[in-house]
This record gives sequence, structure tokens and C-alpha cells, in this order.
Amino acid sequence: MTAIDLYDRNCPSRQVLDRIGDTWSVLIIATLADGPRRYSQLAARIDGISPKMLTQTLRGLERDGMISRTVFPEVPPRVEYDLTGLGRSLLGLVSGMSAWAEEHIDDVVGARVAYDTRAQASA
Amino acid sequence: MTAIDLYDRNCPSRQVLDRIGDTWSVLIIATLADGPRRYSQLAARIDGISPKMLTQTLRGLERDGMISRTVFPEVPPRVEYDLTGLGRSLLGLVSGMSAWAEEHIDDVVGARVAYDTRAQASA
Repeated sequence: MTAIDLYDRNCPSRQVLDRIGDTWSVLIIATLADGPRRYSQLAARIDGISPKMLTQTLRGLERDGMISRTVFPEVPPRVEYDLTGLGRSLLGLVSGMSAWAEEHIDDVVGARVAYDTRAQASA
Repeated sequence: MTAIDLYDRNCPSRQVLDRIGDTWSVLIIATLADGPRRYSQLAARIDGISPKMLTQTLRGLERDGMISRTVFPEVPPRVEYDLTGLGRSLLGLVSGMSAWAEEHIDDVVGARVAYDTRAQASA
């Protein structure tokens, strides 16, 4: 096995980092923390996600082994998404990211205003 | 002040989540954990980042208050990037993300192979 190096563009851990940092993935995983959800429930919860992006992100999360997709043989068929063990192992990080974003939002917004003011003053 | 809601597309915390999840931002912050770096040092360390993307990400991180940019009046001028206190407060998360990516890379790669095999079998 070759050494794992996030700084190497060809290391697959780089793709894993892309996945766990992706905002839509984070919001889907956080929603599924409360239990399985249907597609329509995810779409309703995650404001601003397009159907195309939701479908694509769910497929990517399933392919990466982070969520499961179960089809219940009903009429019409019911499809539910749930976290796998691997997906569940991300919950600590996901809640850490959410908490950081919520906690530091004022600092970031303040920094942006200051930056833009300096940029204008030197223009 | 309005309530903070990551699930609301218009909440600025959503943009903060985009920033802290961005792979290039994560790799820049992780590199600066060891101390200030010049542009050329960052470019050499982070394999695969284009000059345009590096410049753009550094500017975004500076605007968001996570890194500082210091110009030393030498000939030629030396420019150094460093973490601010806010940027430093991200180091725990960044190392958590890197550790998760490195630890679970085999699970993710295995899940992908299994998914692609199933997809081929049902095609």
C-alpha cells in the first residue's frame, strides 16, 4: 500500500476530503442523523438544493458507502435513505463544522466588511 | 439578529460552511499550521492547485478573516501568509477532517468498487 498524502493530487484521500467537505453532503448527513428520510423530506429540509444536485449528492454518498438506499415494495414504492456505520462515523465532524459555522458567523461577516472597506479605500 | 439556520440558503452560515469545507482552504490552513508561508511555498506544498485557484482561495481566506497577508518592504517585496486567531480556531476541525479521510480511505474505496460492481451487474 502506498503512503496516504492529502497533499498529493492523485491520492484518493483527496477525493474523500472533497466529499466530507461538500456542503450538500454535510447537510444531508446532518439531516439523516435524526433517522431515515425519503427524498421529498430531504428536499424540503435542505433549502436551495436543486433536484439534480440532491439526486447526484445522494448517489455519490451511496457510492462512497456513507448512506444506504432502501426500496420498500409498496405501491408506489417507498425509497428511504439512511446513514451507514461509515456515514455515522462522520457525525462528530459534521456537527463540529456546523457548530463552528454558527459560532463564528459574526466574526466572518465582520472580517468581510473590514476587508471590503479597506479594498475600497485603496482603490 | 435573526436566527442562524444552516438549512436556510440565505443564512450567511451556509457560506461559512462552504468555506470551511472547501478542500483547497483546508489544505492551505493545514499547511499554515506549521507557521507563515510564502505564496511559492504554498504552491509547492499543495499538489495540483493552479496559480489562479491558489490566489483566489488565499484572497477568500483573507477576506473571511482566517489568514493575514503581510508585505515586507524588501527588494523584491516578500509576502507572507499566516493564520489569524480565527483561522487557528479551525485547526481542530481541519485535522479531524484530514484524519478521517486518511483513516477511512480504504472503506470508501471499497464501497465504490462494490457499488460499481452492483451497477454493472444490474445493467
